[in-house]
Amino acid sequence: MAVRVAVAGASGYAGGEVLRLLLAHPEVEIGALTGHSNAGELFGNLQPHLVPLAGRTLEATTPEVLAGHDVVFLALPHGQSAAVAAQLGADVLVVDMGADHRLKDSADWDTFYGAPHAGTWPYGLPELPGARAALEGARRIAVPGCFPTAVSLALFPAYQAQLAEPEAVIVAATGTSGAGKALKAHLLGAEVMGSVTPYGVGGAHRHTPEMVQNLSPLAGTRVSVSFTPNLVPMARGILATCSAKALPGTTAESLRAAYEKAYADEPFVHLLPEGRWPSTKSVHGSNAVHVQVAYDESAQRIIAISAIDNLTKGTAGGAVQSMNIALGLPEGTGLSTIGVAP
Amino acid sequence: MAVRVAVAGASGYAGGEVLRLLLAHPEVEIGALTGHSNAGELFGNLQPHLVPLAGRTLEATTPEVLAGHDVVFLALPHGQSAAVAAQLGADVLVVDMGADHRLKDSADWDTFYGAPHAGTWPYGLPELPGARAALEGARRIAVPGCFPTAVSLALFPAYQAQLAEPEAVIVAATGTSGAGKALKAHLLGAEVMGSVTPYGVGGAHRHTPEMVQNLSPLAGTRVSVSFTPNLVPMARGILATCSAKALPGTTAESLRAAYEKAYADEPFVHLLPEGRWPSTKSVHGSNAVHVQVAYDESAQRIIAISAIDNLTKGTAGGAVQSMNIALGLPEGTGLSTIGVAP
Amino acid sequence: MAVRVAVAGASGYAGGEVLRLLLAHPEVEIGALTGHSNAGELFGNLQPHLVPLAGRTLEATTPEVLAGHDVVFLALPHGQSAAVAAQLGADVLVVDMGADHRLKDSADWDTFYGAPHAGTWPYGLPELPGARAALEGARRIAVPGCFPTAVSLALFPAYQAQLAEPEAVIVAATGTSGAGKALKAHLLGAEVMGSVTPYGVGGAHRHTPEMVQNLSPLAGTRVSVSFTPNLVPMARGILATCSAKALPGTTAESLRAAYEKAYADEPFVHLLPEGRWPSTKSVHGSNAVHVQVAYDESAQRIIAISAIDNLTKGTAGGAVQSMNIALGLPEGTGLSTIGVAP
Amino acid sequence: MAVRVAVAGASGYAGGEVLRLLLAHPEVEIGALTGHSNAGELFGNLQPHLVPLAGRTLEATTPEVLAGHDVVFLALPHGQSAAVAAQLGADVLVVDMGADHRLKDSADWDTFYGAPHAGTWPYGLPELPGARAALEGARRIAVPGCFPTAVSLALFPAYQAQLAEPEAVIVAATGTSGAGKALKAHLLGAEVMGSVTPYGVGGAHRHTPEMVQNLSPLAGTRVSVSFTPNLVPMARGILATCSAKALPGTTAESLRAAYEKAYADEPFVHLLPEGRWPSTKSVHGSNAVHVQVAYDESAQRIIAISAIDNLTKGTAGGAVQSMNIALGLPEGTGLSTIGVAP
Repeated sequence: MAVRVAVAGASGYAGGEVLRLLLAHPEVEIGALTGHSNAGELFGNLQPHLVPLAGRTLEATTPEVLAGHDVVFLALPHGQSAAVAAQLGADVLVVDMGADHRLKDSADWDTFYGAPHAGTWPYGLPELPGARAALEGARRIAVPGCFPTAVSLALFPAYQAQLAEPEAVIVAATGTSGAGKALKAHLLGAEVMGSVTPYGVGGAHRHTPEMVQNLSPLAGTRVSVSFTPNLVPMARGILATCSAKALPGTTAESLRAAYEKAYADEPFVHLLPEGRWPSTKSVHGSNAVHVQVAYDESAQRIIAISAIDNLTKGTAGGAVQSMNIALGLPEGTGLSTIGVAP
Repeated sequence: MAVRVAVAGASGYAGGEVLRLLLAHPEVEIGALTGHSNAGELFGNLQPHLVPLAGRTLEATTPEVLAGHDVVFLALPHGQSAAVAAQLGADVLVVDMGADHRLKDSADWDTFYGAPHAGTWPYGLPELPGARAALEGARRIAVPGCFPTAVSLALFPAYQAQLAEPEAVIVAATGTSGAGKALKAHLLGAEVMGSVTPYGVGGAHRHTPEMVQNLSPLAGTRVSVSFTPNLVPMARGILATCSAKALPGTTAESLRAAYEKAYADEPFVHLLPEGRWPSTKSVHGSNAVHVQVAYDESAQRIIAISAIDNLTKGTAGGAVQSMNIALGLPEGTGLSTIGVAP
Repeated sequence: MAVRVAVAGASGYAGGEVLRLLLAHPEVEIGALTGHSNAGELFGNLQPHLVPLAGRTLEATTPEVLAGHDVVFLALPHGQSAAVAAQLGADVLVVDMGADHRLKDSADWDTFYGAPHAGTWPYGLPELPGARAALEGARRIAVPGCFPTAVSLALFPAYQAQLAEPEAVIVAATGTSGAGKALKAHLLGAEVMGSVTPYGVGGAHRHTPEMVQNLSPLAGTRVSVSFTPNLVPMARGILATCSAKALPGTTAESLRAAYEKAYADEPFVHLLPEGRWPSTKSVHGSNAVHVQVAYDESAQRIIAISAIDNLTKGTAGGAVQSMNIALGLPEGTGLSTIGVAP
Repeated sequence: MAVRVAVAGASGYAGGEVLRLLLAHPEVEIGALTGHSNAGELFGNLQPHLVPLAGRTLEATTPEVLAGHDVVFLALPHGQSAAVAAQLGADVLVVDMGADHRLKDSADWDTFYGAPHAGTWPYGLPELPGARAALEGARRIAVPGCFPTAVSLALFPAYQAQLAEPEAVIVAATGTSGAGKALKAHLLGAEVMGSVTPYGVGGAHRHTPEMVQNLSPLAGTRVSVSFTPNLVPMARGILATCSAKALPGTTAESLRAAYEKAYADEPFVHLLPEGRWPSTKSVHGSNAVHVQVAYDESAQRIIAISAIDNLTKGTAGGAVQSMNIALGLPEGTGLSTIGVAP
């Protein structure tokens, strides 16, 4: 019997992406598609690439419309998920692709988001040590941020193997879909094409505490994170260039071994052959994470780089992967490691 | 029992794309991957987005390597397909993604290609009236050119319904993957980003006679084609803007009706709702064709516009679709109408 | 003594571009910079590329602020120019970069713009036969639309030499800055990168009657125009692919001769050597127009293609060129034929 | 009397850019244009954006052709400059835009380039403390690498003011023109559009020792540099995200003050207002450097970010600026701080 799924916030980029994946999911039947300002519009006009849903109409995000589904994906502005989830039964699987239930530390939430903290849900990054078990049978899931996904998977093996000092420096290039469909002048095509711009510089980006939260337990101490995102001229993709000073005794071999061990059995993480580096194009539209690591002897630093599709593994793919685990389906159902390139 | 498939020319864009699709095809087992100058290289270094094939090695294109497959896809420079096909059994399905067996008129072949004409094979554009039947049970298939695919599907309903004068004017924007992986200065990223350039202007493009060949039988007279491709700054996609003078009596309604009739039952052609126009992003990586048509009363012209992914429906997707028909599989097996957007 | 210039609408793309050019103009002193919703903001935050003006403040567009200048450039939404111009003295040179005073036929204005027609001003396309003389000493100038600039310069020599039938078919690729800084979802970077989309199809684009107006007098009869613009993934540039059926007797030689004659003495029009085709990158940021023409014998059509920078020659460069003529300065003062490539 | 200038390597990106600037330089007359494999070709076919030179022919790079010029710009592959310079008189100003004469330490040269070291010339980064004086009257100039230009100008004020620990971590996004016109598969448009890829990771990039050389004297100790370039989908531009741990006592105010002091009188360095961050688009085609700095209290790191055009300030603009100083011309002659945006 098919799993019946609703998507709240179906007209945005995260909502569209989760529907793209769910349409290819053999166990899923797509139910309600809801939105806010666009409710009542023909869905084909809002997401013209989703041809099988072209004749649907976007409904309003109400308890009545969302009732009667086994799974509800939430792609809502932060601060709204808790209220919607409270209206759904405890046996409904609610997968929140927003930020509301990621952070454990309410003080971090207050500092970076400034709204009442809605509490913490099981964290939808199965590759993170311990996370997969917490997702099995879960009925509430917090999907990680796109940058924390890329950064945590690039760096955690180095911390887990006690090879890196607890001060990470990260610069991540991101496609502009990461900012959503918000109508802002700096996101216009004429502005972003041919240009690279940083934002959220100096510790201001909201994804920073989530990275600290993911890496610190593995390091056994608080890891400080200096994080600078760069907006680059592409629609999708994140390339995270992450580094940390190596602890004494680290070698290129011990570093490689740590990553090989961490990712030997992970279906979606592809540790590249030595000497090859990731590119975002190779993971375009896929749930794969490409990772490579090197040891810079001169600077005594570990450099770990990951590439993901911010909308797929970074949002909707991670969400479907976590749904599969929660429902007891094979983890990779409906997901692919194959990018659309060139 | 799985259909065993080989791909000759697997390191190029067409070869990579057909493998991307075949990896998702439930009835196919991927056999030999062959190439020329790169033979012996690790496949993961050549097509890093095809993770499941990363450990394979590219082999040489020889009869021995290609033997023992049910289907062989050819992604070779023009002029080479006939010799390779001759070495394969008559019961092997050979799908030629190159130009060698598309044109019926040897004089056209001589004019535009200048090599001995290798003969004509069943034409892999199932949506063209009469083409589907010729593909059933075929063991040799000529996959259409990417531009003729886009243009023929945009225009043929108007000619079939006797609404258009036999002089078509076409300007098509194409992504640069259409030119293949050839190392040419004008295809470098620094040249193409931020620039639009025409090429093959004035009747010189090799796809022109193929368009004439496709449209003329439906018009009942020779259709002349003025075709100008524009290279635009994107990796994939074709948007074909096609027009022809309307025959007397044509109305917006009769035009719409002709297209609705032509495409009522086509699984991959999506006639957009009136007033919506295609975009290449909506078909990115999919086998869909988005079509729209309008009647310009002032200029008394029919304007028909189609969007395809040049590598998918325009090459490898059309090839797999035709393979499915030839093998008696459901036509859409392993193919999708859903684009990767944004 | 310097010419004192004000720019109304200085925070948009046309306003920014005219200031970029005026900053390099040796006879000009930049006076007031005005805007509407952004009045009061630091100009450096609005146009960060114009470093010498970074410390200025945007003022409101009022008669008081605009008073005391020799020249006022208007970069305003259509329908607003006439009212502002009426408040300025008859001896002030008003250069309208908007649409209000381009069309001679009020019926066209009503059909395509739907507001009361503000009347016609001398037309700022000096290369059009007769236009330069009308600009000398003028105190009101209507700058042409970007598409009519590209199209008229591609086609008029063929009409002037009586070589083409009066039915022109035009498809133009345009960068997204042509749509201005308007906050619309389809102009977001994530939407436009990797995509080509037509708009204003079927005779609906407002620039169509302006093309008819420019070409018809030279043809000696009404020229019908089928015009389809395509939005392509670049910030700047127009490539106009224009064609018309050749009149009997036209040859490749007579065609070439017509263009050589028309452009022998034009400082900004560069007729390319035979066999070379324009690219928008070559005119990026310059006032140059690159033109090429060919005769397609098979289709019996003339194909003329031009490349311009929509913001420079297509808007602000044409405006400065016309200002120079009106003020009696050398026509090329402060302007360049050199593009920023690659 | 005009300064007569030759350009060796005129068909590449650096050669084309220096000619673009020299065409706008009021004191310069352009003499010989030379090349290697393209010698004999019409220059207009090689650099179609340089309309005033369209009728020139590329000559071979020989002593005879280069003789009789006051200034010779060299845009040659590394290892070739010394031999060409030896053939030119000691009174000829030779400006080497390649790498041959940048490094002081022959061991660094051997490690990163592997050819015999050609010796060190005055360093063409006038903004670096002490560099301007060494350029006055010079007849040999080594133009800095594009990345060292961006990085040194982002970081040196922090080191000069003794605010930063001597371990710099740098990730720089670069447009693909930085790799030159080399025909390599990974530089094809279809590969780079929509993709970000790192290269030269782990201390392998040849520009690393040049950064160390520039920063260490100001820090008073050897500064280690971890440098990772990212290839991003644009033709031009570098955004360098640079950071270092702050020394105790550093405050946001002391940091700002250091940068304000360093750049108070620099004509081409634009320290942005607090809270604004650079974008490469704002410096497109200009000789400007946009810089911003912040103190991340949580990570206790200084983050300094610069944007340059890699071909202008990063290569040809820096070369012309240095030429001006060497010849005693006003430093900014023929150069602009105004970018071509959007």
